Amino acid sequence: MRTALGVDIGGTALKLGLVSENGKLLAKRNEPSEVADGPAAAVDRIEHTARGLLVQVGARRESLVGVGVGCPGPMKYSEGQMYDAANLPRWTDAPLRSMLAEQAGLPVVVENDANMATWGELWLGAGRGMRDIVLLTLGTGVGSGVIVDGELLRGHFENGGELGHCIVVPGGRLCNCGQRGCIEAYSSASRVAADAEQAARVTPGSLLAERLRAGEEIDSKVVEGCAREGDATALRVWTEACQHLATAIVNIQHAFNPQRVILGGGMSHAGEFLLDAVRTAFESLTWKLAPDQPEIVCAELGNDAGMIGAAGRIFRHVSGAR
Amino acid sequence: MRTALGVDIGGTALKLGLVSENGKLLAKRNEPSEVADGPAAAVDRIEHTARGLLVQVGARRESLVGVGVGCPGPMKYSEGQMYDAANLPRWTDAPLRSMLAEQAGLPVVVENDANMATWGELWLGAGRGMRDIVLLTLGTGVGSGVIVDGELLRGHFENGGELGHCIVVPGGRLCNCGQRGCIEAYSSASRVAADAEQAARVTPGSLLAERLRAGEEIDSKVVEGCAREGDATALRVWTEACQHLATAIVNIQHAFNPQRVILGGGMSHAGEFLLDAVRTAFESLTWKLAPDQPEIVCAELGNDAGMIGAAGRIFRHVSGAR
Repeated sequence: MRTALGVDIGGTALKLGLVSENGKLLAKRNEPSEVADGPAAAVDRIEHTARGLLVQVGARRESLVGVGVGCPGPMKYSEGQMYDAANLPRWTDAPLRSMLAEQAGLPVVVENDANMATWGELWLGAGRGMRDIVLLTLGTGVGSGVIVDGELLRGHFENGGELGHCIVVPGGRLCNCGQRGCIEAYSSASRVAADAEQAARVTPGSLLAERLRAGEEIDSKVVEGCAREGDATALRVWTEACQHLATAIVNIQHAFNPQRVILGGGMSHAGEFLLDAVRTAFESLTWKLAPDQPEIVCAELGNDAGMIGAAGRIFRHVSGAR
Repeated sequence: MRTALGVDIGGTALKLGLVSENGKLLAKRNEPSEVADGPAAAVDRIEHTARGLLVQVGARRESLVGVGVGCPGPMKYSEGQMYDAANLPRWTDAPLRSMLAEQAGLPVVVENDANMATWGELWLGAGRGMRDIVLLTLGTGVGSGVIVDGELLRGHFENGGELGHCIVVPGGRLCNCGQRGCIEAYSSASRVAADAEQAARVTPGSLLAERLRAGEEIDSKVVEGCAREGDATALRVWTEACQHLATAIVNIQHAFNPQRVILGGGMSHAGEFLLDAVRTAFESLTWKLAPDQPEIVCAELGNDAGMIGAAGRIFRHVSGAR
């Protein structure tokens, strides 16, 4: 049995998973990412954890065909390094792929984390058996990946499929990326939480305000909960985020014409409550000229999507694909 | 020498070109499309004109490897037929590819006209030697085609790359497609002309109003001319159209990350006057996180792009590609 290590590097956690070639997640581990220690320390920790995982499942070191790594932010894919990751300042321009390949003595692919998660959903999740899908992850930001005709879209500058920074409100809110009106500035879990907190402060009679007074931290789950209980303030915030998301999905429909648009990240835990709102808004916004509406569904692999996809990409890489 | 016939079917004209394998346009002809006669009559006319073009250049019938056809509107590519083309009512669901293939006894590919034009620019125009480009044609509507890693993007429902119907102003103007706020409703040559005429009527002191009183028909060329002469009203209309276009190009940048965004159609005759306005607006709108800005340039093949691209696609088809 051949195995691959999938790694998902985040600002707070380093997620590692050992995956078999037939798509079984054999073992996984979360480590603190301790990004301040820089990439060399992370490479050591990856190598060390990999050995531990192999021992844990009783697999031989020789079974490991390579390491796939998902990283936040824009990437120089062909160089295997990040540009300027806001959460990983010491990592800028670090030659992550070659550092890791040298240490492990194995093939390594490094890729944007949302791309890895998209590949995971294609391989083993909500996109199984499909050739054209788009994943949007509604978390701290809005990440995304695009599969066109069975392959990840990268584009000439290798940063394609960054749909979180497509503009849905011209001249709108300032986004962390420096642009105005990005979908990330309206429909990420953190923006929904911030909008709800602000709305609660000016609507003291709302359920949201009650939760806030009770000392609860307002996150997107609290907003969802209050909206489900019929709180008008929470429902308005939730619906507005879904409306902007639906505009983005109309644009995704016309740009990529995917079979499915898959929603992941924190907000996707709302399941049908999210999908209903997004589908209703999408239906009211899209054209009727062609029967080309993508199915809008939730992701299936949750937080494991990134590491599973990363493992999948290295299997693909060693099988001779690009 | 092998030849291919490229056909561009429009609402008013049927453009036909005989193209050699090395990319020389040997001869071309414009016929009235007489769409009211339906597709069978058009197939006859294509066959008849093809014979005429072969005689004209002294090529043998046997040199002709096939026929490529560009059609307006959404397409069922794999079936070689149109859905519901607004300008070609009798053509709906006509099996254009099989009709033409039967009559000509040759391979035929049928494709959205903007896709064909994009392929033309990739083969012999502003996208030569590239693998990732996007074409936007600013004419009656806004057509578009997308090349990802050297191949036309179609997507699962075969209508990908319809960027004219991406929304840039949520809740904005009603578009001919039934949606609100499409780029086509703001930045097509016809919308620029209509906006300018409206602006002229409420700004009697403008140069535009003067032209209107002189009985001139206001088209996008007149708007460009007045704007170049410094007419504030014309310049405002022109600049607004370019601003919306720039928003669309930011979204194209993040979605496809192309090497070039190529502007064609009527408005592209403005050349640098168009590009300057679009580039300035783009620069003010886009992020600075990664050095991944596409070059924004004008198309090079003009009205011949569609038939040249159609000929190129059939050469590609008979060479064994999809």
